[in-house]
Amino acid sequence: LNDYFVGAMKGAILDINSSARVVDITHEIPPQAIEVAAFNLLAVYKTFGAGTIHVAVVDPGVGSARRPIVISAGGQFFVGPDNGIFSYVLDRESDARVYHVTNDLYFLKPTSATFHGRDVFAPIAAALSTGVSPRELGDGIDDPVRLKSLAPERLKHGKLGGRLIHIDRFGNCITNFTRNELPDKLIRQGARLNIKGKVVSEFREFFAGESKARLFALWGSAGFLEIVAPNRSAAKLLKAKRGDKILLELRYGIRVVSAHRAVG
Amino acid sequence: LNDYFVGAMKGAILDINSSARVVDITHEIPPQAIEVAAFNLLAVYKTFGAGTIHVAVVDPGVGSARRPIVISAGGQFFVGPDNGIFSYVLDRESDARVYHVTNDLYFLKPTSATFHGRDVFAPIAAALSTGVSPRELGDGIDDPVRLKSLAPERLKHGKLGGRLIHIDRFGNCITNFTRNELPDKLIRQGARLNIKGKVVSEFREFFAGESKARLFALWGSAGFLEIVAPNRSAAKLLKAKRGDKILLELRYGIRVVSAHRAVG
Amino acid sequence: LNDYFVGAMKGAILDINSSARVVDITHEIPPQAIEVAAFNLLAVYKTFGAGTIHVAVVDPGVGSARRPIVISAGGQFFVGPDNGIFSYVLDRESDARVYHVTNDLYFLKPTSATFHGRDVFAPIAAALSTGVSPRELGDGIDDPVRLKSLAPERLKHGKLGGRLIHIDRFGNCITNFTRNELPDKLIRQGARLNIKGKVVSEFREFFAGESKARLFALWGSAGFLEIVAPNRSAAKLLKAKRGDKILLELRYGIRVVSAHRAVG
Repeated sequence: LNDYFVGAMKGAILDINSSARVVDITHEIPPQAIEVAAFNLLAVYKTFGAGTIHVAVVDPGVGSARRPIVISAGGQFFVGPDNGIFSYVLDRESDARVYHVTNDLYFLKPTSATFHGRDVFAPIAAALSTGVSPRELGDGIDDPVRLKSLAPERLKHGKLGGRLIHIDRFGNCITNFTRNELPDKLIRQGARLNIKGKVVSEFREFFAGESKARLFALWGSAGFLEIVAPNRSAAKLLKAKRGDKILLELRYGIRVVSAHRAVG
Repeated sequence: LNDYFVGAMKGAILDINSSARVVDITHEIPPQAIEVAAFNLLAVYKTFGAGTIHVAVVDPGVGSARRPIVISAGGQFFVGPDNGIFSYVLDRESDARVYHVTNDLYFLKPTSATFHGRDVFAPIAAALSTGVSPRELGDGIDDPVRLKSLAPERLKHGKLGGRLIHIDRFGNCITNFTRNELPDKLIRQGARLNIKGKVVSEFREFFAGESKARLFALWGSAGFLEIVAPNRSAAKLLKAKRGDKILLELRYGIRVVSAHRAVG
Repeated sequence: LNDYFVGAMKGAILDINSSARVVDITHEIPPQAIEVAAFNLLAVYKTFGAGTIHVAVVDPGVGSARRPIVISAGGQFFVGPDNGIFSYVLDRESDARVYHVTNDLYFLKPTSATFHGRDVFAPIAAALSTGVSPRELGDGIDDPVRLKSLAPERLKHGKLGGRLIHIDRFGNCITNFTRNELPDKLIRQGARLNIKGKVVSEFREFFAGESKARLFALWGSAGFLEIVAPNRSAAKLLKAKRGDKILLELRYGIRVVSAHRAVG
């Protein structure tokens, strides 16, 4: 936001389709933090309606060496470099189709070597918004770059291995556990998280309300379990950073394992 | 801006009303600084035309415990949590009516416990923009949360007690004095401000121009008297912070008091 | 962005022309850094289509003492204070005409002394967007404030004297050399940059790719030669700051000079 880069991309879009509605998601992704960008996109894309075209570029300088791709998935389009940024969307959307853009008809000319956001990705998005089909832009591919999956690992004794996938500006620690692994029924039967040597065993519905616990877990707005601290930064309390491992123990899982051992 | 929160709210609005015009005021209100948000809203709402719908949320996590309200005032609507954020608008607009939103028809479902900005407030705003009446959303209430009034206190000897209500990015110190308390005629007769042991007695029309004074007062764009320093931060010079007390002495007031004493 | 200033300007525009498309370029220009603003505008304006109206204000407090101007140039309009902010556009666009706005018909009333962005420049831009002609706003002038030209100096022995005109958020150092002074043919014949006692002699097309050089030069997206470092801040490596001098030596120039000396 402290340079002309974002404004230039919007100018390039509006120059092709002056009736396009351009909405900013975030321009504060740290340089080259593709996983952070991928998480933010995952958290937000479903809030937008069918036909939305998402443009994502991380580090305009470096990203330009990747092949440009368009993804059609879940009634929306995604435009950007093939660096894994759309990886989590691909994990979610079973109807996803990926195209390698080789047709430069819509590129801004002369096409710079350093600012593909303005010269390649924005114009592709604008072209799609005017009804151009991804097939007109290039062939389908089946080997897009993928990030490590967000699915937790199933460990022995019924435990689940997860990780911190994001820390938001409030210091809330977002894990990769979803209701798929952890339906309410299992939580009611008892579950606890182990992170950085600390145990979080309180699961709550809201931030507000009295509690003696310094840390508790709740379902975040992106559908992932979050570790939070009331009016404080959970990340600071835990000295946690993105990528840290989290162990999820279900009492149900432990009980089954014990029974299994007795049999053994 | 460094997370997906704002983008998600816009997505939720545009998904309901794709022709809505969404304008950002600011997303840099410090967490839970309701007074700062209330001031910024007060300073800007009149610049927008009739029919504008203002959505204001401070700290999406914490605000969600408050009841959601809609205010109809001065030909505009205001949507947000009942935490005092619209308090200064209520002070200004005598026709204001406040509604407690209990009808969840327009909420995003499933409605998260942690992100009412996206799931509750943005959809309410979008519904209003399509012509839904506040009365359809809930009953009128007469006990919204109110912040301490912005009106200065009338002290004895004709003095006025005020406070710093905002410090802007240039370090200008915005007081709660308006032309109501301080018409030009009184300034011409002589007035001075006491703040943090320093006296400000120069009142000016512009920032620019030569002056020997390190600090002077002028009418800011939000209609409040500001203490400023040419090309410097008045806040730093004064070591001032939001909430600091300011005493306003009018020569007129002092003269009257003296006369009164003579009579006594 | 952490105050209401930008939102207020958009409100003022939309109140006059509710169908205007408002696009942010940047609001992070350091206070009074007119050259930085001028560079960002130069880098981006051509990406927007004909009929675009650019509004630029640096430091809303201080800028207000300058006369308000409108520039018609290259099929676009530019609105702001006469402080040099449009200087580089004037250097580029030979058809530019500058008008001093004296007609206050479209100003927001009462017009504040401190926020001309909202009360003067935004309304002027909105008026232009509804078809008002610059001639209706004031007379043409031929003495707008100009910044030092971006053209490099021609030194003896065929050398060129340039300077750093911008350092972007990645630490890339943008010079004032363009393809006009440095066509590809000359680069292929050999050229090198001297900056802060260091020599940069590698010229590349892309950021990516292996190299032993810590620093190299490439054409940036704004059309200027940049000194960059792969995945690092060239500015930090060079301890460079905006305004630093750069010497460009062409082998062609040197060869000619040698010949000349031999003749001498």
